[in-house]
Amino acid sequence: MSRPPFRIGVVAPGTPLEPATAEEVLALAGELHPDGAVEIAVHPQCFLNHGHFAGDDRTRTAAFLEFANDPAFDAVWFARGGYGACRLVEGVFAGLAPAAADKAYLGYSDAGTLLAALYSRGFGRVAHGPMPQDVRRAGGAAAVERALAWLVEGRADALEPSVSPEVPAVAFNITILSQLIGTPWQPDVSGHVLMLEEVSEYMYRIDRSLCHITSNPAIRHAAGLRLGRCSDIPENDRPFVLTEEEIAREWCDRSGIPWLGRADIGHDADNKVVPFGRRSA
Amino acid sequence: MSRPPFRIGVVAPGTPLEPATAEEVLALAGELHPDGAVEIAVHPQCFLNHGHFAGDDRTRTAAFLEFANDPAFDAVWFARGGYGACRLVEGVFAGLAPAAADKAYLGYSDAGTLLAALYSRGFGRVAHGPMPQDVRRAGGAAAVERALAWLVEGRADALEPSVSPEVPAVAFNITILSQLIGTPWQPDVSGHVLMLEEVSEYMYRIDRSLCHITSNPAIRHAAGLRLGRCSDIPENDRPFVLTEEEIAREWCDRSGIPWLGRADIGHDADNKVVPFGRRSA
Repeated sequence: MSRPPFRIGVVAPGTPLEPATAEEVLALAGELHPDGAVEIAVHPQCFLNHGHFAGDDRTRTAAFLEFANDPAFDAVWFARGGYGACRLVEGVFAGLAPAAADKAYLGYSDAGTLLAALYSRGFGRVAHGPMPQDVRRAGGAAAVERALAWLVEGRADALEPSVSPEVPAVAFNITILSQLIGTPWQPDVSGHVLMLEEVSEYMYRIDRSLCHITSNPAIRHAAGLRLGRCSDIPENDRPFVLTEEEIAREWCDRSGIPWLGRADIGHDADNKVVPFGRRSA
Repeated sequence: MSRPPFRIGVVAPGTPLEPATAEEVLALAGELHPDGAVEIAVHPQCFLNHGHFAGDDRTRTAAFLEFANDPAFDAVWFARGGYGACRLVEGVFAGLAPAAADKAYLGYSDAGTLLAALYSRGFGRVAHGPMPQDVRRAGGAAAVERALAWLVEGRADALEPSVSPEVPAVAFNITILSQLIGTPWQPDVSGHVLMLEEVSEYMYRIDRSLCHITSNPAIRHAAGLRLGRCSDIPENDRPFVLTEEEIAREWCDRSGIPWLGRADIGHDADNKVVPFGRRSA
């Protein structure tokens, strides 16, 4: 008897996915697993347009819960970022069923809000890593392949290289984590390596957000900080002078959080997978 | 015997002031008070250039403490915003002397971080209102005149019209308050009217920051929310559809914070003064 396929459900808590992008990801998954070992269901909600969002809050929440609560799915894969996940957290919390805790969740950027919320609920298979939309990046097929390698096979070569079985980790976009601070779904990072990345923010905003994050007393219990890539930083009318690494080192120094170096994550095709919590050995 | 002059010290916790701007403010104050009843000392730190900032953190902190701790000053007036105040909070807390509690503090935007920190320390005369840099706005002389009317004379016509002796208030820039949430200097807004304004942020960011702010359990103890002006909102690649008032009303509705209407504050020459806490009758 053959093994049942690994079933992945794609939902879009923020902005919509283009159908052509979804097709590209499905085709790529088919090439990678021609034996049909992987099945990807893209929820039709992903293609909706409601103002800024891929459907209104109720529709996006319902789509997430439909897939998260369905025992037939092994994983929920966030389609893309773009803003909107924070609007769903309270509805998601109100609707989670037991089957939701038994699957993997993968995404980053705006989707980090839901990763944080699920991790704060004790979900054990939550990870920061590539999303379907990444297939559109230069070299993006490798990102999607890496996501599937972690989701389906738990492959170690998909992981951010510093991830170890000994020390738990979390990873976030800097702005997204800043806007989780002081909410009921702020992740408990005590004893965790905190990996952070950013895209398209002025350097002074990276500085301000790192000031914010490292000023929170609970965050200061992190085992250390690793900085991922900060890309597409716009030029400001005043140069900030400090680099992102100098900024991160300074806030580590001021807050007493150990500086651990760089992390191989970012808004790019090289973005590696960071499972939240302790990686199984 | 004539009354001693009211002495105002100007410091710049963020970006530098241009000397010509300072001269314009001094000239205006001289016209408004030809009797010499008001003396304004602009700290030379205001004109320094250190990368993004008006002097390095140590220099800006020292300038603030020099004026705040000097009993000869009746008020400390923040020169302008532009980012940098959050870098000073810990040093300011470490250096405050008793005389600092006996004076008024006035500013807004980035300076809101220091207003929050001082208010969290129990300082009684902290207010959100115009700064010297505002003289450069169209009609900006009226803003500076309003600031002086509150600082020197405590004039009621300088106040935001809903400010009342019955209900305490605070006012902040939305992004600045968001980045105070969960820090030790998050202001206690229990029972306060919370007035918020914004400038130059995408509408989706206003939405995200209001989600963040209103998700904090302590903020939910506010007596209500009033929305100031949200100006210069950039166009996004996706229209947000909701207006800033619809956004604020929605987050009030979701969080249980009473919606109280609009506030006459903003990044403009009409920005009225909001004293923190209970206005003296």
